[in-house]
Amino acid sequence: MSVIEQARRAREAAAELATAPRKVKDAALHAMADALVARTEEIVAANAGDIEAGRTAGLSTAIIDRLTLTGARIAGIAEALREMAALPDPVGEVVRGSTLPNGLELRQIRVPFGVVGIIYEARPNVTADAAGICLKSGNAALLRGSSSAANSNAAIVAVLRAAVADAGLPADAIQLLDSSSRDSVKELMRARGLVDVLIPRGGASLIRTVVEESTVPVIETGVGNCHVYVDAAADLDKALAVVLNAKTQRLSTCNTAESLLVHEAVADAFLPRVLAAFAQAGVTVHGTPEVAAYSPDVVAATDEDFGTEYLSADISAAVVPSLSAAVAHIRSYGTGHTEAIVTDSTTAAREFVARVDAAAVMVNASTRFTDGGEFGFGAEIGISTQKLHARGPMGLPELTSTKYVVTGDGHVRT
Amino acid sequence: MSVIEQARRAREAAAELATAPRKVKDAALHAMADALVARTEEIVAANAGDIEAGRTAGLSTAIIDRLTLTGARIAGIAEALREMAALPDPVGEVVRGSTLPNGLELRQIRVPFGVVGIIYEARPNVTADAAGICLKSGNAALLRGSSSAANSNAAIVAVLRAAVADAGLPADAIQLLDSSSRDSVKELMRARGLVDVLIPRGGASLIRTVVEESTVPVIETGVGNCHVYVDAAADLDKALAVVLNAKTQRLSTCNTAESLLVHEAVADAFLPRVLAAFAQAGVTVHGTPEVAAYSPDVVAATDEDFGTEYLSADISAAVVPSLSAAVAHIRSYGTGHTEAIVTDSTTAAREFVARVDAAAVMVNASTRFTDGGEFGFGAEIGISTQKLHARGPMGLPELTSTKYVVTGDGHVRT
Repeated sequence: MSVIEQARRAREAAAELATAPRKVKDAALHAMADALVARTEEIVAANAGDIEAGRTAGLSTAIIDRLTLTGARIAGIAEALREMAALPDPVGEVVRGSTLPNGLELRQIRVPFGVVGIIYEARPNVTADAAGICLKSGNAALLRGSSSAANSNAAIVAVLRAAVADAGLPADAIQLLDSSSRDSVKELMRARGLVDVLIPRGGASLIRTVVEESTVPVIETGVGNCHVYVDAAADLDKALAVVLNAKTQRLSTCNTAESLLVHEAVADAFLPRVLAAFAQAGVTVHGTPEVAAYSPDVVAATDEDFGTEYLSADISAAVVPSLSAAVAHIRSYGTGHTEAIVTDSTTAAREFVARVDAAAVMVNASTRFTDGGEFGFGAEIGISTQKLHARGPMGLPELTSTKYVVTGDGHVRT
Repeated sequence: MSVIEQARRAREAAAELATAPRKVKDAALHAMADALVARTEEIVAANAGDIEAGRTAGLSTAIIDRLTLTGARIAGIAEALREMAALPDPVGEVVRGSTLPNGLELRQIRVPFGVVGIIYEARPNVTADAAGICLKSGNAALLRGSSSAANSNAAIVAVLRAAVADAGLPADAIQLLDSSSRDSVKELMRARGLVDVLIPRGGASLIRTVVEESTVPVIETGVGNCHVYVDAAADLDKALAVVLNAKTQRLSTCNTAESLLVHEAVADAFLPRVLAAFAQAGVTVHGTPEVAAYSPDVVAATDEDFGTEYLSADISAAVVPSLSAAVAHIRSYGTGHTEAIVTDSTTAAREFVARVDAAAVMVNASTRFTDGGEFGFGAEIGISTQKLHARGPMGLPELTSTKYVVTGDGHVRT
């Protein structure tokens, strides 16, 4: 089936989903969870095909691990769907309301987008997660996963569709697109009018392509060249803890710190400590000469280093003469994801927060906290790095639009 | 100066504007208003050049009228700026906030977009309006007006820039782009990274071009093929008043009704009355044979008629067998702007509201109410017909994004 035909079916399904009461959607989420657990064996069998193909193709152990589904992992995916069912329904929430001077009753109400396209990479757990979060928010999902997970995704989607239909909602609320070629991505990007929003999740090049070529409105996610700035007034013990956590707690996430900026007033006191800690943690520091002066382990940083999202055990580092210089550096190299300051000065914190333009600004906290789960959203479809519609972690309300409902008694405009 | 260079300057100005306190911005708006009034003579003189060129080019009397600036009109434009100064500042508003279980303080705060590009047609009052609403919301404005208003716009922008600079804000917060060719539109559409949002205001073809070609995120405005559905349970006196107002109160606005749907149960009682009223008002009805049966004045409607935003003294009309048929018709032909139902049945009203997918749904009220002024927003930059970010009339909050500010005490993620 063509992507356009799938999008048409999604549109039909979306019209039905838009008015589905919460209890029906929640029942469907529970049915999806139960079905995943009940049909674990066939999903694992399909997954084995992907793993074998991945090994033959020479995928890394880390990627194979991310691709692998076990009974325990499937139980975890099912549990996430049950947790979504417990979250409040964003649809129908009155965002704003008033009675106008002429007596008209104005209400702005959350409504689903309609059809949401999601393009993502390897991990098959995203398939169920994205399907669930779309269904809960009343949207039909067009899922375009990675070809390396094609068998796993097909098995999961077959299970989910059957469960959704059993629960009395249209199976076409969840559809998997062909991942064997780039054509499905291209068709999806041109399906304006049928697809309401496109969310690319993945590497920088995928996101750039979608942003450049899509006529469907896009929510850009993901790229994070995140900085930690250690201010002149920082508590250096806290600074050390925050910097290490931001870089090393997980290396390959978009909220991992990729660059360290240290105020020159605390360089002597802080850099030897943090460089020793990084050496012990196996992190390579790419530093300016001012940083390298404190340790022979420091590799000379190029300008490119400061613009790089390493997603590895590497960090760039520089000494800055002032908070303003730190802000200017972040303005030049940052990607607008998460920026952190460590300081005990309220003046410095206030200035950094006001002047840094990013989805999230951390004061005395690790960049790793920019996350829907950590923020208490319960479910997350990705982290937006654009300014339109949603910025930062996107939960259920971010998958909705609004509608004004105006009620009168034969009111006319004069 | 190239558009890119102007956008770079706008970006610099935006960084300063983002942290400007409300009282400075409001003082600038008053300075802008005062300067427009004080320098009325030179603006009227520049406007005379545009009017003369317009007459030579054979522009219609209506367009010449819209283009014309007088002392009274400039006073009105100035008054609108003063009203904007009185509105609350959206910047800094805390949209959401909580203390997380680990003690982190989470706040989601409104921040300006940064640089907003606006592409618009003839009327020079939009120049000052758009500049004012952008400044109030902390955004730098790149204004691309119509070439037919080039002299007027240049004079207005010169006055506004001087006033803004006098008030201590960067003059580059307000810049006019060259309107002598389409090149400036093209450059603006490709200035991703420098321009945060593009708002095209104008005809369907301009909007389509921008939506198709822009890599800068777009907020689509304007096209309105609005319907009024007269339900079986309608109070026919109210229905008549609403239908006439929706069509004839102003012919050329996007919230004007372009199509009438009448339930077959009230066709006999309602159509003769509404057709007579339309005949008296000079409105041509393009109807199906069922409609034409009630009056020889009805012109046969083609399928194209039902998809047309006339913006003139014309309306399409059809009889429908049910509310569901009305919803299906609207789903096929509507543009998602404003749809109205006239009914005394709560069941019918509830179903129509739930199933019609539009920026605004009116119950027993004229479609003409979809308007930032009518909704009490105080200022309006346009009416969005897309679902991403803003839908319906856009006031000051719709010209902002958000930023998460997370404050801790050395918090790290475990």
